[in-house]
Amino acid sequence: MYYTNYMNQDPSQYQYELEFSVRDYECDLQGIVNNGVYLNYFEHARHTFLLQKKIDFAGLHQEGIDLLVSRIEIDYKLSLTSGDLFVVRLKTSREGALRLIFEQDIFKLPENKLVAHAKVIGVGVKRGRPVRLVDIPGFNELI
Amino acid sequence: MYYTNYMNQDPSQYQYELEFSVRDYECDLQGIVNNGVYLNYFEHARHTFLLQKKIDFAGLHQEGIDLLVSRIEIDYKLSLTSGDLFVVRLKTSREGALRLIFEQDIFKLPENKLVAHAKVIGVGVKRGRPVRLVDIPGFNELI
Amino acid sequence: MYYTNYMNQDPSQYQYELEFSVRDYECDLQGIVNNGVYLNYFEHARHTFLLQKKIDFAGLHQEGIDLLVSRIEIDYKLSLTSGDLFVVRLKTSREGALRLIFEQDIFKLPENKLVAHAKVIGVGVKRGRPVRLVDIPGFNELI
Amino acid sequence: MYYTNYMNQDPSQYQYELEFSVRDYECDLQGIVNNGVYLNYFEHARHTFLLQKKIDFAGLHQEGIDLLVSRIEIDYKLSLTSGDLFVVRLKTSREGALRLIFEQDIFKLPENKLVAHAKVIGVGVKRGRPVRLVDIPGFNELI
Repeated sequence: MYYTNYMNQDPSQYQYELEFSVRDYECDLQGIVNNGVYLNYFEHARHTFLLQKKIDFAGLHQEGIDLLVSRIEIDYKLSLTSGDLFVVRLKTSREGALRLIFEQDIFKLPENKLVAHAKVIGVGVKRGRPVRLVDIPGFNELI
Repeated sequence: MYYTNYMNQDPSQYQYELEFSVRDYECDLQGIVNNGVYLNYFEHARHTFLLQKKIDFAGLHQEGIDLLVSRIEIDYKLSLTSGDLFVVRLKTSREGALRLIFEQDIFKLPENKLVAHAKVIGVGVKRGRPVRLVDIPGFNELI
Repeated sequence: MYYTNYMNQDPSQYQYELEFSVRDYECDLQGIVNNGVYLNYFEHARHTFLLQKKIDFAGLHQEGIDLLVSRIEIDYKLSLTSGDLFVVRLKTSREGALRLIFEQDIFKLPENKLVAHAKVIGVGVKRGRPVRLVDIPGFNELI
Repeated sequence: MYYTNYMNQDPSQYQYELEFSVRDYECDLQGIVNNGVYLNYFEHARHTFLLQKKIDFAGLHQEGIDLLVSRIEIDYKLSLTSGDLFVVRLKTSREGALRLIFEQDIFKLPENKLVAHAKVIGVGVKRGRPVRLVDIPGFNELI
């Protein structure tokens, strides 16, 4: 995006991070990563974080529990382009009995410039009905 | 999503609408449209709306002006799945000299159930610097 | 692609056709539709063709039968780009008891220029084992 | 796919390899990686291979030379699914003055089972006309 925010954020304030590099097919005709692709990056970071906590998105689906995004907010600060390296960092918190909040930041490497910030609200659903976080296997240890 | 919102919105309050159907490759392992794909739907509706107003996203890029998303908020209300028909409706407004706001709603057809609501902030950038909306060819008539 | 093939093919030799328009997010940094996106177009045309024949890809999956692509060949003749309209036409044939062949052509509209040709081999699988085409609900009428 | 091919291929016969893991958003409603996504994997491996040889796909585009896929053949042998690790291996050869052939194999790790084999024909184009491989910066050393 058109303004540049230098934030050399302290990685220790996050619970997890995952490095990526831009793949050329993720860039659109403007030569930059398309805005929709960031949701892929954010999702993949959330799922590998959860897996590390022994929570398997695909496995839960097979047990009938679906983890869904109910709201997402993204501020795009800087564009990623072909060849860029970046890291997605995240931390979680709970909101009420049903909502898991992910704060996710993307930083371009090696400068650690903030690229995008997202707040993602996730919920669990079983047979169409909301599931309390404590009733989702693995989530009690998570938060 | 786990709750259902019946909103038989009045189409006349929007400036534009475009119909889509879900393509199977857009569904993920949960059998529903992946959260990132909605940004594709929203973008395609914005671009065809702009084209109708003689504003060509690809053409502007070739003239050195890039239209970028600086912020997006999405509330996901209902999941779309294989075979679903839906419409994306939108209206625009201006915020200051630089920001174009798109309010976009997706409704499942034929019931007209609200699937997702988005607020998208778009800006124009020329050689890395913000461009006033009035200086982007075609935008003065738009808003 | 670098050469242009004028083939005003006779639509009557196909069993089915579906019109599309290029969406800007499908174009990559070269400003043309990325080579992988054509598989999405081909797949969507196959699935809507099958649906019209009362064969539901998603429904079959829920009954435990997966339709899989075992081989695909694509010749890319001409690049699609932002704003292009095109049609995917297809015809099917059977190869042995197990394989369904789709011949699929993409033509740019309105000129009817050949954009890409694909030959796709599809098979059915149930619990990891091949299923004869005649044993897949709806396929006997298909071919 | 429905049959399993155990091929513990010798990695030394390839010129390059790149490891990946499946991202959940790449799986479709069958719970497996969608057939179109493999073209993304193959492309990303080709581009990182070329970059290592100092050939930059995005940079060439800015100089007016586009590397295009003119033909692709893929045999799908085994399905990848959520959580799978795999490697894409490739080797190149030249066909005539204009065509670069990539033989690309995907192996699931750690078993080294063959998942898919592709033959990809790439060509260079400058202002709509074919470019000889020797006239593309960096390609003479490549092959």
